[in-house]
Amino acid sequence: MPVPAPNLYPVFNTVRVSHAYLNVHDLAASKQFYADTLGLQITDEDAEHVYLRAMEERGHHSIVLQQSDQPGTVEAMAFKTFDERDLDAAHAYFASLGRPVAWIDRPYQGRTLRTSDNCGIPIEFYYRMDQLAPIHQTYALYKGVKPLRIDHINCFSNDVDASVAFYSKFGFRVTEYTEDEESGRLWAAWLHRKGGVHDIAFTNGTGPRMHHVAFWVPTPLNIIDLLDLMSTTGYVANIERGPGRHGISNAFFLYVLDPDGHRIEIYCSDYQTVDPDLAPIKWDLKDPQRQTLWGAAAPESWFKHGSPFLGVPTQVPDLKATPIIAP
Amino acid sequence: MPVPAPNLYPVFNTVRVSHAYLNVHDLAASKQFYADTLGLQITDEDAEHVYLRAMEERGHHSIVLQQSDQPGTVEAMAFKTFDERDLDAAHAYFASLGRPVAWIDRPYQGRTLRTSDNCGIPIEFYYRMDQLAPIHQTYALYKGVKPLRIDHINCFSNDVDASVAFYSKFGFRVTEYTEDEESGRLWAAWLHRKGGVHDIAFTNGTGPRMHHVAFWVPTPLNIIDLLDLMSTTGYVANIERGPGRHGISNAFFLYVLDPDGHRIEIYCSDYQTVDPDLAPIKWDLKDPQRQTLWGAAAPESWFKHGSPFLGVPTQVPDLKATPIIAP
Amino acid sequence: MPVPAPNLYPVFNTVRVSHAYLNVHDLAASKQFYADTLGLQITDEDAEHVYLRAMEERGHHSIVLQQSDQPGTVEAMAFKTFDERDLDAAHAYFASLGRPVAWIDRPYQGRTLRTSDNCGIPIEFYYRMDQLAPIHQTYALYKGVKPLRIDHINCFSNDVDASVAFYSKFGFRVTEYTEDEESGRLWAAWLHRKGGVHDIAFTNGTGPRMHHVAFWVPTPLNIIDLLDLMSTTGYVANIERGPGRHGISNAFFLYVLDPDGHRIEIYCSDYQTVDPDLAPIKWDLKDPQRQTLWGAAAPESWFKHGSPFLGVPTQVPDLKATPIIAP
Amino acid sequence: MPVPAPNLYPVFNTVRVSHAYLNVHDLAASKQFYADTLGLQITDEDAEHVYLRAMEERGHHSIVLQQSDQPGTVEAMAFKTFDERDLDAAHAYFASLGRPVAWIDRPYQGRTLRTSDNCGIPIEFYYRMDQLAPIHQTYALYKGVKPLRIDHINCFSNDVDASVAFYSKFGFRVTEYTEDEESGRLWAAWLHRKGGVHDIAFTNGTGPRMHHVAFWVPTPLNIIDLLDLMSTTGYVANIERGPGRHGISNAFFLYVLDPDGHRIEIYCSDYQTVDPDLAPIKWDLKDPQRQTLWGAAAPESWFKHGSPFLGVPTQVPDLKATPIIAP
Repeated sequence: MPVPAPNLYPVFNTVRVSHAYLNVHDLAASKQFYADTLGLQITDEDAEHVYLRAMEERGHHSIVLQQSDQPGTVEAMAFKTFDERDLDAAHAYFASLGRPVAWIDRPYQGRTLRTSDNCGIPIEFYYRMDQLAPIHQTYALYKGVKPLRIDHINCFSNDVDASVAFYSKFGFRVTEYTEDEESGRLWAAWLHRKGGVHDIAFTNGTGPRMHHVAFWVPTPLNIIDLLDLMSTTGYVANIERGPGRHGISNAFFLYVLDPDGHRIEIYCSDYQTVDPDLAPIKWDLKDPQRQTLWGAAAPESWFKHGSPFLGVPTQVPDLKATPIIAP
Repeated sequence: MPVPAPNLYPVFNTVRVSHAYLNVHDLAASKQFYADTLGLQITDEDAEHVYLRAMEERGHHSIVLQQSDQPGTVEAMAFKTFDERDLDAAHAYFASLGRPVAWIDRPYQGRTLRTSDNCGIPIEFYYRMDQLAPIHQTYALYKGVKPLRIDHINCFSNDVDASVAFYSKFGFRVTEYTEDEESGRLWAAWLHRKGGVHDIAFTNGTGPRMHHVAFWVPTPLNIIDLLDLMSTTGYVANIERGPGRHGISNAFFLYVLDPDGHRIEIYCSDYQTVDPDLAPIKWDLKDPQRQTLWGAAAPESWFKHGSPFLGVPTQVPDLKATPIIAP
Repeated sequence: MPVPAPNLYPVFNTVRVSHAYLNVHDLAASKQFYADTLGLQITDEDAEHVYLRAMEERGHHSIVLQQSDQPGTVEAMAFKTFDERDLDAAHAYFASLGRPVAWIDRPYQGRTLRTSDNCGIPIEFYYRMDQLAPIHQTYALYKGVKPLRIDHINCFSNDVDASVAFYSKFGFRVTEYTEDEESGRLWAAWLHRKGGVHDIAFTNGTGPRMHHVAFWVPTPLNIIDLLDLMSTTGYVANIERGPGRHGISNAFFLYVLDPDGHRIEIYCSDYQTVDPDLAPIKWDLKDPQRQTLWGAAAPESWFKHGSPFLGVPTQVPDLKATPIIAP
Repeated sequence: MPVPAPNLYPVFNTVRVSHAYLNVHDLAASKQFYADTLGLQITDEDAEHVYLRAMEERGHHSIVLQQSDQPGTVEAMAFKTFDERDLDAAHAYFASLGRPVAWIDRPYQGRTLRTSDNCGIPIEFYYRMDQLAPIHQTYALYKGVKPLRIDHINCFSNDVDASVAFYSKFGFRVTEYTEDEESGRLWAAWLHRKGGVHDIAFTNGTGPRMHHVAFWVPTPLNIIDLLDLMSTTGYVANIERGPGRHGISNAFFLYVLDPDGHRIEIYCSDYQTVDPDLAPIKWDLKDPQRQTLWGAAAPESWFKHGSPFLGVPTQVPDLKATPIIAP
């Protein structure tokens, strides 16, 4: 098995993936997409930023849209640590690895550590974000796909084995993975901290690039509602893949593209993974049901297109598999 | 508008489409598909026949499976008339058109008229079928996709204008249609008697052939359940198209193929059409959303494959449209 | 069986129940309830009227709200006939019975016949209403409970046997009924024209009064959405009964009260009844599952409260059953 | 605020609630209820025990049914610790409190610690259970309510403040609570380890007794399916309360009683609580929407009836509130 043993006692405790900073060319167009269509709630905005949260989130933001002259790029993805001591431990940990580390200021957050992972993805850690009043029972605000919370971020990596090893060392645990049986190497892997199938996933491809950010919704019917809405409000071309059920994760999914091509997954019904002895599920790269349990192939764009990280060069993947398709 | 005015006062009253006779190569395999997987209820069977009904039907059968040395063909499709006098009027009507007419015996039915339509499709009419005890509240029997009732039959016609004219004359009413704008001719049309979007539909193609039989189910979630079941019980290759929402009819759909290649649509949430002055909705052949509101294309097999009617020769379609794709 | 045989060949053809005129004390409050909360679409309004339709209706209105100094009363309920000749036949028919008949003007409708039924309920018939553009695929307009169409009207009758006999004579067909086994008389009955379980129902009680108007919605989840919305927007006290499944009709239901106490049922998933030989289902007055299949009792208000018809005196019911509870 | 600050750094790490041992009078009747009706999977059985798991669980059991001459009692409830060192730390911890501690043998589990909580509830801890092959994608096995996993256990406590203090000390975190505003004391509280609203809850009442065990299901429609099934297979009297939405937890719920009166909650759609700084939500004992957001009252049995723990004496509650009703 190419999956490294999880580090059950990491030097710092990461609670979950928290948010992403997406660069866009037109904040108004993005607001129409994220707030009016998907149904995220705007928690603050100025001329260059829009902060959004989903319906059950009390933290200030899970998506930050940023007016940019490099639209379609991602500035960073962020994780929440359990406590302040974990944040300091993270700083020490990444410094000890020789990764660049810096304390940066982020609005509505406490102290924020900025570093980058093994393949250069800018990652940030914080332990405290402004808490807003609960709105999960303010049902008059629900609209669009009724997004409840950020679930995970998926990235292309040009070396999935290395990416998985990197995150496993500080406590991410693999729940499912796709193996290239010929080389014995990882094609893709799903890793979590929060007790779901993943907080982050890596797929073999030109990387690093962000493949998608996913939001959890109540039921598959909300996804059908979004499809009906998007297809009759000018967004039919933004529907990329789905609806369907993933073999991997068993989740019901839909992939849509925002006005800058950032891919958003709408996601529900994966399973609980809090047990530390939960064995990872292995999938064969040649099994098409790992992507879509029901057998439908994903479109080529889904395997090719991603959002570069701002200023981070990409490399062609390390692993060339016979089937160029992969989730 | 190429749609003929409906005949609101036909000489006989057809209530609805009732059932189809499907020829199969292996009754056991078909039973496993229709009863164990789709969830239809077996109401009788012998060495050469299986009779099935859906959960809210009280008539004895809506599908008859027949062991045959010509599997993959359809013997006939059948309609229920309002009363016995309508049956006699139908006999006189089709005879007056010069169509072949015969009274035949069908188990569990009263007097049955057999004739054929303009392009040779064998059609049967009856007014009385054995009524069984209701089972729609025997919830322990529900399984598979929880099929509630037969909804419609869709056929390829090599001359859709002629087919629509034929059925319109005895009272079928068009609810939606696709027009080939260049020729001004019908590409496809949906016609009803029972107050839904259709009892029967015709699509341009090599015909006559049956395209599919459709069953109504409670909600889209039942269709998702069927997809999960079929994809993990050896039927993943039998999933042909969907799930999705049709532009035409607004219905949520899934198409699956039985072991002989007969196509079954699982269908729900179209709309009520009982008003005689309901205007037909026109769709342009060039609009891909008429097929799938969400934009996903149907696979080529869906446009090509159909079940011939037993002993009925087919002809290539009369109308050659630029886009060869059509619902 | 106390149910009269249906008249399969009535002298005029009624298509379906069409709309009701509800008198209210505050149009603004009613609009907030019907349009903003339930999600009906306003098709016209002036200082004294609001016209509304549901999402799949093309006729101009299915509810008319009227500012009135007698709020909480109902002016009339209306039916659509198949054609103009049916309207004239209806006029002749009701005149022949000695019922009052008059041609009246109703905005957005063609010629309208006003008469009253056996117990004095003002009923109106028309054959032509202004047809509006379809909005069933304008998904951005869907909100609230996503009401699709008016389904039925339910009334208290002080003599259910007489009411059922009256409507049966012009073609309404009983689908289900509750019998008082001791007296052999009808306690309640459900009658249809359009092919569902009912267009109109009568229940034993001080009458005539309207018990409720029902709207059809896509799935039970829309009803749950409405409950969540009403209970967090100041309408929690307007939730009267449900959600639940009726034994009778097998429908999933919710009853809510509008600001004047008019009861609205949200309803889905009954069954198709187009077959003229469909046998009525009999329920025993002593069986509590006929009301709620799951066993929960309805609150007392549900058996007692109703909307009087404007100017129509009521009488205590003819039949005194031991269990005063009844659907 | 009467809620104690959570202990974010407890001496041992509890992952989640794991299972309960329910004593029953007739294993066959219980199997019919838990396996055939609810849809749990039997993983082992002998003349005196039935072990069951839900569809996404890989651990051997989440319910153990035990033939007993004291049916209707509960032998113990069990928790999983993160690792073996946590188990030893738990032993030391409870011994240091003066609680009885013992290592016991439980089939299919590793070393098991048995102790009891502040009010005498027998609680067990283990870190390793036999792992079975995943069945969450063996869709042919899904039936009944499609239970996915055990979610929580709810108990009556005669001193909720003391119970909450006891569990908080070893790391349980309060997510929501009901306060008796007059006395400033806790009426009820919901505490978690796994990142949902609760693993365990306590409600003021004669205690200790188990109020219910809850299973998570995919969507509210599965709960409706169970209601339809139970009400037509002889279990209508076992439906106690619901369906509805709790104000507290925001979950969609149904309560049913097993053949011995053990209460089972069917539960879905609460929210993620992994953030350690998530503020508990306070409810007023006088707010009826905390119990049912939609306003319907729970039946009296729901406040009175519970399952005693085998051999554990109960006491009347410490706190007498004006409204005797409480969730």
